[in-house]
Amino acid sequence: MGHDIRIVTEAQLREIVALDRDLVDVIERGFVALAAGEVVMPPILSMDLPQVNGEVDVKTAWMPGVEGFAIKVSPGFFDNPALGLASLNGLMVLLSARTGLVQAVFLDNGYLTDIRTAAAGAVAARHLAPATVETAGVLGTGVQARLQMQAAHLERPFRRVLVWGRDAARAQACARDLAETLGIEAQVAATPEAVVRDSQLVVTTTPSRTPLVQADWLHDELLVTAMGADQAGKTEIAPAALEAAGLYVCDRVSQARVSGELEGALAAGLMQDVVPPELGALIGAMPAPRPGCIICDLTGTGVQDTAIATHVHARLGDAGSVIAV
Amino acid sequence: MGHDIRIVTEAQLREIVALDRDLVDVIERGFVALAAGEVVMPPILSMDLPQVNGEVDVKTAWMPGVEGFAIKVSPGFFDNPALGLASLNGLMVLLSARTGLVQAVFLDNGYLTDIRTAAAGAVAARHLAPATVETAGVLGTGVQARLQMQAAHLERPFRRVLVWGRDAARAQACARDLAETLGIEAQVAATPEAVVRDSQLVVTTTPSRTPLVQADWLHDELLVTAMGADQAGKTEIAPAALEAAGLYVCDRVSQARVSGELEGALAAGLMQDVVPPELGALIGAMPAPRPGCIICDLTGTGVQDTAIATHVHARLGDAGSVIAV
Repeated sequence: MGHDIRIVTEAQLREIVALDRDLVDVIERGFVALAAGEVVMPPILSMDLPQVNGEVDVKTAWMPGVEGFAIKVSPGFFDNPALGLASLNGLMVLLSARTGLVQAVFLDNGYLTDIRTAAAGAVAARHLAPATVETAGVLGTGVQARLQMQAAHLERPFRRVLVWGRDAARAQACARDLAETLGIEAQVAATPEAVVRDSQLVVTTTPSRTPLVQADWLHDELLVTAMGADQAGKTEIAPAALEAAGLYVCDRVSQARVSGELEGALAAGLMQDVVPPELGALIGAMPAPRPGCIICDLTGTGVQDTAIATHVHARLGDAGSVIAV
Repeated sequence: MGHDIRIVTEAQLREIVALDRDLVDVIERGFVALAAGEVVMPPILSMDLPQVNGEVDVKTAWMPGVEGFAIKVSPGFFDNPALGLASLNGLMVLLSARTGLVQAVFLDNGYLTDIRTAAAGAVAARHLAPATVETAGVLGTGVQARLQMQAAHLERPFRRVLVWGRDAARAQACARDLAETLGIEAQVAATPEAVVRDSQLVVTTTPSRTPLVQADWLHDELLVTAMGADQAGKTEIAPAALEAAGLYVCDRVSQARVSGELEGALAAGLMQDVVPPELGALIGAMPAPRPGCIICDLTGTGVQDTAIATHVHARLGDAGSVIAV
């Protein structure tokens, strides 16, 4: 028996879904379901390809009560810019949660991943940031640096943003873009330390393999959301900072242990007896008063992909091409 | 910078590629490359969904010198037949091995998996079966039972086929189909024992979780190719049979240990000190004389998916739809 598959391009997807508070709500529900324990989420398929300076991740999650589930393919090939191509690409496949039939293929070139990743940062900001954020800061100057500041601004409408990057010209460009997009003051900071000390909300978005954020710089009125570490060996936060923080939270403990900031801390002999809470478990259940500086370690979960893919599918209307198979 | 993605349906793919000796050559080259040690092949992403009597596997492999690599999504939802749907479905995505850009999406509903799996059986028959096979046998009565006998017949043109299945009517239908397709005598066998004792080449294609083939039935002029076990807990061959055989071969040791016949033998305390050869390492390097009964344990590898997907891509011509992204 044949069925129809919808093929939707990045341009069409950009018409359907954007980084806004609706999307943050969608991703938040994914984290709540994950913490409730009924989501099936296998370990990430991760293929490292040093021969071509590349990597590929495949993520998935099946959520009870949700009609579909996504299988998300994320290639990162870091010599692409020299060819005039983006480093990050990929697609999402949406399958029926009841029959496994392919429902749709989202040829998004990584767009849905970009915004669902940013939306996770907004979920962290919503629940873990100080109630008032005057200044936010970002380490890194790429697409995700811009999107994370847009996402955080949805939840904490800060008046100033600080940008730090290794490349001063790129940091300037990022600051200019953020000033224009958010209509706020944006400055380039000379050091990560200046960003951390002067902000109430910091997001780290780099592929760093050595820590950028040190324990000494932390202060009580601060949320640090670490987005960059998503593979073994990547790290942005010093192990001592994880122990120094008032609270360390992650999206998924099993992933944080092998590919997040927790990996480095465990290897350094720290955080040995800590069973950290997962972000979803704190939604609507934050201890009061707020426990000082909070570090939120987001490695990226398949449940975010399933959440955004089913959200998009429900809004498709007649967008895209229909292929009968 | 935009690029084009080719979308190809099952019907179009069936026009382009079939189960023939060309395809067996393609899959054979995949096994040779795998054994040569330069293929990157991460562990299978496997998601078990008992809530809906389903499972999903994702496989991939990157081969040096090959322009693309496949990411293959195989859902199996075993309540589908009651809905008039096939249990097995899925698709393959072909990405550039150099840039990670999506080149093509093969909406094959599992067709490419079916024939690349059968072709692997033919590779085993080519290199491991007795030189002369008068009678071949198959356990199981589904699509793969038919395809495996067609594949084996390409390499060892046997004159008689024996079919055993739990359901006699389905076994009759399978035997009828094989008699017609291959133009040979086909009989239903009363027991797995009769199949194994009377054949020189046996392929097992069932989802069994208890062994069907016992050690006592093996004889020197026999190849048993075990296709069914591809997930933890599945088994078709008794642990003692693995030790009793003159040679045990598998497609990938790391997979056979956790999801093939080797899993059960290891759990039973057998095969503890055996480091089995992989199929690709024996191609062109079989010991002479042939070491008696051979058991070949095929769990299914991502390299087969990359081999068939790149083969199809090279033959596409102008088939399928082009989507600009």
